[in-house]
Amino acid sequence: MNRPPLRFEIHSEEGEARAGVLTTRRGPIETPVFMPVGTAGTVKGIRFEELESDDLNARIILGNTYHLWLRPGIDVIKAAGGLHRFIGWERALLTDSGGFQVWSLGALRKISEEGTEFRSHVDGSLRFLSPEVSMDVQAALGSDIVMVFDECAPGAASHEETERSMQLTTRWARRSKTAFTQLQAEGADTGRVLDADGLSGAQALFGIVQGAGHLDLRHHSLEQTVDIGFDGYAIGGLSVGEEKQVMFDVIDEIAPKMPKDAPRYLMGVGTPEDLVESVARGVDMFDCVLPTRNGRTGQAFTSRGKLNIKNAQWAQDNRPLDESCSCSVCRRHSRSYLRHLYMSGEMLASILLTHHNLAFFLDTMRGVRQSIRSGDFPKFRREFTERLSANGD
Amino acid sequence: MNRPPLRFEIHSEEGEARAGVLTTRRGPIETPVFMPVGTAGTVKGIRFEELESDDLNARIILGNTYHLWLRPGIDVIKAAGGLHRFIGWERALLTDSGGFQVWSLGALRKISEEGTEFRSHVDGSLRFLSPEVSMDVQAALGSDIVMVFDECAPGAASHEETERSMQLTTRWARRSKTAFTQLQAEGADTGRVLDADGLSGAQALFGIVQGAGHLDLRHHSLEQTVDIGFDGYAIGGLSVGEEKQVMFDVIDEIAPKMPKDAPRYLMGVGTPEDLVESVARGVDMFDCVLPTRNGRTGQAFTSRGKLNIKNAQWAQDNRPLDESCSCSVCRRHSRSYLRHLYMSGEMLASILLTHHNLAFFLDTMRGVRQSIRSGDFPKFRREFTERLSANGD
Repeated sequence: MNRPPLRFEIHSEEGEARAGVLTTRRGPIETPVFMPVGTAGTVKGIRFEELESDDLNARIILGNTYHLWLRPGIDVIKAAGGLHRFIGWERALLTDSGGFQVWSLGALRKISEEGTEFRSHVDGSLRFLSPEVSMDVQAALGSDIVMVFDECAPGAASHEETERSMQLTTRWARRSKTAFTQLQAEGADTGRVLDADGLSGAQALFGIVQGAGHLDLRHHSLEQTVDIGFDGYAIGGLSVGEEKQVMFDVIDEIAPKMPKDAPRYLMGVGTPEDLVESVARGVDMFDCVLPTRNGRTGQAFTSRGKLNIKNAQWAQDNRPLDESCSCSVCRRHSRSYLRHLYMSGEMLASILLTHHNLAFFLDTMRGVRQSIRSGDFPKFRREFTERLSANGD
Repeated sequence: MNRPPLRFEIHSEEGEARAGVLTTRRGPIETPVFMPVGTAGTVKGIRFEELESDDLNARIILGNTYHLWLRPGIDVIKAAGGLHRFIGWERALLTDSGGFQVWSLGALRKISEEGTEFRSHVDGSLRFLSPEVSMDVQAALGSDIVMVFDECAPGAASHEETERSMQLTTRWARRSKTAFTQLQAEGADTGRVLDADGLSGAQALFGIVQGAGHLDLRHHSLEQTVDIGFDGYAIGGLSVGEEKQVMFDVIDEIAPKMPKDAPRYLMGVGTPEDLVESVARGVDMFDCVLPTRNGRTGQAFTSRGKLNIKNAQWAQDNRPLDESCSCSVCRRHSRSYLRHLYMSGEMLASILLTHHNLAFFLDTMRGVRQSIRSGDFPKFRREFTERLSANGD
């Protein structure tokens, strides 16, 4: 009866980098893994069939407590039998807690010990989110990995301000776990899997380490979070406007000290080079809106750096976006055509750039995993980074 | 050396309805056929892989001389080696001549015997389109079926006005054919197929019958157009705001009198019931923006009538758009989810509704063809029409 909600096995290590398998109740996921972001129940601009195709083969995607709670609302998703069934996706789902979105999107925030009051960006209504509400919503969503409700201090926050925020996050983490445990016992989880091979079939809960760029607070936060005890651990509050060096200082310092036998998730990061560099520091999981968001604004990620499809230089360029890429977009379409679509305001521009960008991110992670397993990660990392600057962008 | 550019064979007839095969240099197309509209080199909101999939299996799509000439411009498409290669589509392409778009989109039109002067809706520049320019552009596009450059009289035009316009269309048709023949001889066609089994491998040219709602002028136009001689014949200038009865009066009167051994193409029409009713009057080919355009504004076509996905009544409805539809959207997604996507402004709403609508139109035509072949078309037509009004919309 004491089966865990997930299993994490490391198969290869090279320096701090590790390759392994994270098994959720929806099946195994090879790590390090990149998770496409499906904010409102859709990874913007791409069909689930494509996410499942060999081209992308995304094993886990994100959903967003804040967005889904405000719209369509929990009643609708419950009526469908949970988020998986509502959106039509049987693979793993991770939901974030809404803490970050309240911080970045909510207007008129009022933070108290109890939780956060804010105005909905959808209809202006006054809403209240707390650890208990967030756990309640995430149980109704039935996601496979639940994140604790945290507070995210601004990147430039003072030591005092950050410490206050970090301590609140710790208390909220404790309340999150209590509420989460209660909800699991009550059977509130809509995504329960009855026959999850060797696993409990229940949701997993991840803690989040905060502390902005203050390393002493990050250490303190890590200690407290591990003390409470979670199925996995995340580093939050990075890639929120701080200097790149601050981000890597935190990852350098914290990632290797996180529990070795649990998955380590770096939230909201980052560029392809950020991913590879963070893997080198011991991170296992990533999510980021860059491939989808930038795809919609005409930016392609390629093995030779970024490419802005709007540039006139591509007007008659019949090469694919990335000559080293074998995704369905690069197999079929030219820069010239993609530029035409973008300049004409055609939806297909966003669809195709999103597809290619996701393919590039997911393929990069495949390369990372293979190289760790074959003992070639340092070489992969060096060559990947050199190639990225080939176009000088 | 006197091989034709296309072949048209009728295999079954039932009343005026006919089922057969239109073979272009890109291969055979079963008729009656619906052609999705790819205005600017993309059928809006859908990938070519989907158009080719068993779900849709579109055998021919439209391109638009007016739009492609203005943007990206002919130089770009020529540099890619023609429209097929530019967009990445190897199946058949029909291009319209630009006549209709000048009429419906161009500002400051000035029509003379020579052609039409207008301002580009893209950049406001002054442009001039004539039979010769249109043939030149369509040769550069390398489409498989070229349409003559015509003038489209307003639906409410007087007899006198319509006659003047129709006569101009006839003179332009003659000039179109002359210019077209010259361009084929010069090898201007970028889409030439060297080894088109039994066919010349050159482009085909269709004439267009005009005359608005005036049946005598329609007859006259048909006579003159057949006199010039084309590979196929279209009825233009319908579905432009006239009463539905006017449209069917024209089709009733004209379609059965069009050459029996050539394909008959009803331009820009229409709803699923318009398609079935027009097939019953002897039409073989259709194009219409309804499935794609209405998909983007939240309207689904179903076997039980239209469905507006915005309606609150679908908020918790877990049924597919159309319970009789087996397309990938209906197999996977609910009305509730699609409504959520639409209300959230998510691009995936347009993508999925477009896919379903195209599947419904193309599947309807499959049903039409089968029923003609099996001698059941009257039954198909009756049941299809009855079912369409089931939802009372």
